Amino acid sequence: MLKDLALFNKIANLLLKSEEEHPIANPIPPEDLYDKLDISLGAAPASETFFEKTIEDLILSTPRTATKLFFNQLFGGRNSKATLGDLLAVLLNNSMYTYKVAGPQVGIEKEILHKVCDIIGYPKDSDGTFAPGGSMSNFMAMLMARDAYNSSIKTEGVTQKLTLYTSAESHYSIPKNAAFIGVGREQVRHIETNKNGQMISEKLESKITEDLANGFHPFFVNATAGTTVLGAFDDIPLLSLICRKFNLWLHVDGAYCGSVIFSSKYKHLITGLEQADSFSFNAHKMLGTPLTCSIIVTKHKKHLYDSFSNDAAYLYQTDGDDYNLGKTSIQCGRRNDALKLWVLWKSVGTEGLEKIVDHQFYLAKIARSYIKSNPDYTLYSFDDSISVCFNYKNIPAQTLCTALYKNAELMVGFGTFNNEEFVRLVTINTKNTEKEILAFFKAIEKFVAKDPAFQGTEVFEQ
Amino acid sequence: MLKDLALFNKIANLLLKSEEEHPIANPIPPEDLYDKLDISLGAAPASETFFEKTIEDLILSTPRTATKLFFNQLFGGRNSKATLGDLLAVLLNNSMYTYKVAGPQVGIEKEILHKVCDIIGYPKDSDGTFAPGGSMSNFMAMLMARDAYNSSIKTEGVTQKLTLYTSAESHYSIPKNAAFIGVGREQVRHIETNKNGQMISEKLESKITEDLANGFHPFFVNATAGTTVLGAFDDIPLLSLICRKFNLWLHVDGAYCGSVIFSSKYKHLITGLEQADSFSFNAHKMLGTPLTCSIIVTKHKKHLYDSFSNDAAYLYQTDGDDYNLGKTSIQCGRRNDALKLWVLWKSVGTEGLEKIVDHQFYLAKIARSYIKSNPDYTLYSFDDSISVCFNYKNIPAQTLCTALYKNAELMVGFGTFNNEEFVRLVTINTKNTEKEILAFFKAIEKFVAKDPAFQGTEVFEQ
Repeated sequence: MLKDLALFNKIANLLLKSEEEHPIANPIPPEDLYDKLDISLGAAPASETFFEKTIEDLILSTPRTATKLFFNQLFGGRNSKATLGDLLAVLLNNSMYTYKVAGPQVGIEKEILHKVCDIIGYPKDSDGTFAPGGSMSNFMAMLMARDAYNSSIKTEGVTQKLTLYTSAESHYSIPKNAAFIGVGREQVRHIETNKNGQMISEKLESKITEDLANGFHPFFVNATAGTTVLGAFDDIPLLSLICRKFNLWLHVDGAYCGSVIFSSKYKHLITGLEQADSFSFNAHKMLGTPLTCSIIVTKHKKHLYDSFSNDAAYLYQTDGDDYNLGKTSIQCGRRNDALKLWVLWKSVGTEGLEKIVDHQFYLAKIARSYIKSNPDYTLYSFDDSISVCFNYKNIPAQTLCTALYKNAELMVGFGTFNNEEFVRLVTINTKNTEKEILAFFKAIEKFVAKDPAFQGTEVFEQ
Repeated sequence: MLKDLALFNKIANLLLKSEEEHPIANPIPPEDLYDKLDISLGAAPASETFFEKTIEDLILSTPRTATKLFFNQLFGGRNSKATLGDLLAVLLNNSMYTYKVAGPQVGIEKEILHKVCDIIGYPKDSDGTFAPGGSMSNFMAMLMARDAYNSSIKTEGVTQKLTLYTSAESHYSIPKNAAFIGVGREQVRHIETNKNGQMISEKLESKITEDLANGFHPFFVNATAGTTVLGAFDDIPLLSLICRKFNLWLHVDGAYCGSVIFSSKYKHLITGLEQADSFSFNAHKMLGTPLTCSIIVTKHKKHLYDSFSNDAAYLYQTDGDDYNLGKTSIQCGRRNDALKLWVLWKSVGTEGLEKIVDHQFYLAKIARSYIKSNPDYTLYSFDDSISVCFNYKNIPAQTLCTALYKNAELMVGFGTFNNEEFVRLVTINTKNTEKEILAFFKAIEKFVAKDPAFQGTEVFEQ
């Protein structure tokens, strides 16, 4: 192992240095991959020198998500403490299903879960787990809701027309999961949003009433804390009232921005969260841990066990259910996604997590101010969001983002809302400062100014 | 990052050294965790010295799955090349959903999938993906089968009484997944096995016939390549014939032992695999990569897309569907589980993977020989399995395994088959040689000899 640890260090140092010098790796068109890199797997082993060179080439050609020019996803940057935690998790290689083989790692997972429940004001006997990504957290929530609505589904299968509700701006995993759990995509009601991308509660209530009148069985409402495109927060107290009235499970999908629970300044965005039946968030987004670090908690421990536990005598051989985490997981063997967040949290404290969250809103504010003060830009998003959506000189966002990518200038994506397409700048990399945010805009301006394709205006008329 | 890389190296070296000296960490009873380790998370940051000490304590107290005394699970050991790959994946932190942000990592994932399809004799346009663990691979297979049987379920939900078939010795994820997908646990038929733990095909056929006569809708048969307890292989050609006769989807769950596809000597155990509609295996088991590295392939690319693709304009912005791997995944954001296997495979070649697989059968043979030649032992398992099941001096397996664990002597688990309970030695750590396997038995003998609790026989009479 020592030799390969040395090789890891060598490549890591090369990469870190290269990231400073070239924050964007030159993109390789997919059809050129096999020409540019030796990706193929063959029968014979590689010679040592050849092997090292191949790995180095591969690593240095891979898109760089940790640099100051990466704004393409709802994650970015590299938190060194969290990275340390995840590197250690790889080396330890525990599976989180039992206390016997994960030991104290079970303890750190439970400490995180209890602390999160505590922070959001959940009752003491609440519980949760780590899911492999935000989509799977939503899956778990929907499944608990389904089984809580009708416990016989677990044994007998789906027999009713169950309906569920989510905003038109919510994540695509909601209809996907509805198909998975046997409810079906057609039973997903996409509720219209207001101009800020929030679910309109009156529309929700009337749709539920209509469904009930038509003999459907409403069971689940998904609220979003940070919609994928606009970063909008649904109004939890309003939705919660409706859920209580109709006895529906309320889940808050905070995959993107649920980490505002750590900020005294921004937790007002998820006011009422303690009324939700379940809540999930991705620490690999706002908190900057490596992928994936997805947490789901529920105040109904019973339903967590009812939907996910399964006896397995060959597996659960020591210690109680409370310490054998496989009993509350969709997975069996499961990697340790808790350690990265625990190491970060231990190092900076809850105060430090708050600073991380607040800094992202601060960067977004800088970006919005710049846009507002510059007539070449149009702003589409609003305060209290770390998605800053805009267009520059009416250039179609897709054209601009693709050109920036192909020329290795910037990694940024686009989104749409109300038929408007725009660039979506996500200020999620906490390493960035005002300087990098302003440099982002300067890079666009310089690129557009020098590229002849952007000089004619006719292409860009809407 | 450099400072935390240095800390990683410091702790890694401490751990590697400590693993040599103490292959088993002293187990901490769960109720003592907070007394023994500083696990709690608080508001304030930790001082640097305190932080380092805390992390070190935690890492050194965690159960050691990489050592020569760990035989407790269907994984174990530490392959240094695969570990190198996974450490690099942490540092790169790509999400595998799009080519734009994963680039060549998409290429290496696809290379592995194509190579696996090729090796098992699947047609050229077959495809697959990486799932977060073997249970989720089985989930994906069952879901594809459900949707292939009745494509309206995706949109309308489950309306029929669908039935599925698996052996009594198969993994618990099968009934769990049946509950998840809205089919229900009661619709899972657990088919009896023969004395070697293989599904009895006549029983399968008669159950299907009976279900059809009763108006049920059979859609899926799960065969197992390496049952969890005995390591038994279902007879694929026999099951395949039945599946073709009744037009059912045949999945082969090779989570544990599917890696025999790499061995000319042992691939006869999965003869007929090319007839299966889907196949999954965990490289984190027999191939020794860090968790998780679960691969599922299918010869029905269409069904992979039909069940798992979802448009998302904000996400899929460049390159074709073939390179945007999110279209065939249950997840959205997804960590890079491919790199660890690719680095290992590139380094040792397919020949090297074959050696890894063969060595485990060789170690199992040594263990069985030892047991057979020693009258104090009873053997319960058979040739062609890397699960070696036995009892020693009629000591109840649970008592023995728990005592070995609590005294930090050995990490090994127990299992049951046909009402017999026995110790299950899994020879999956390829670093081990004959010496470590014989030392395993000597450790048990010495432990039993010295512990007064094992001196009376009355406790152990069956």
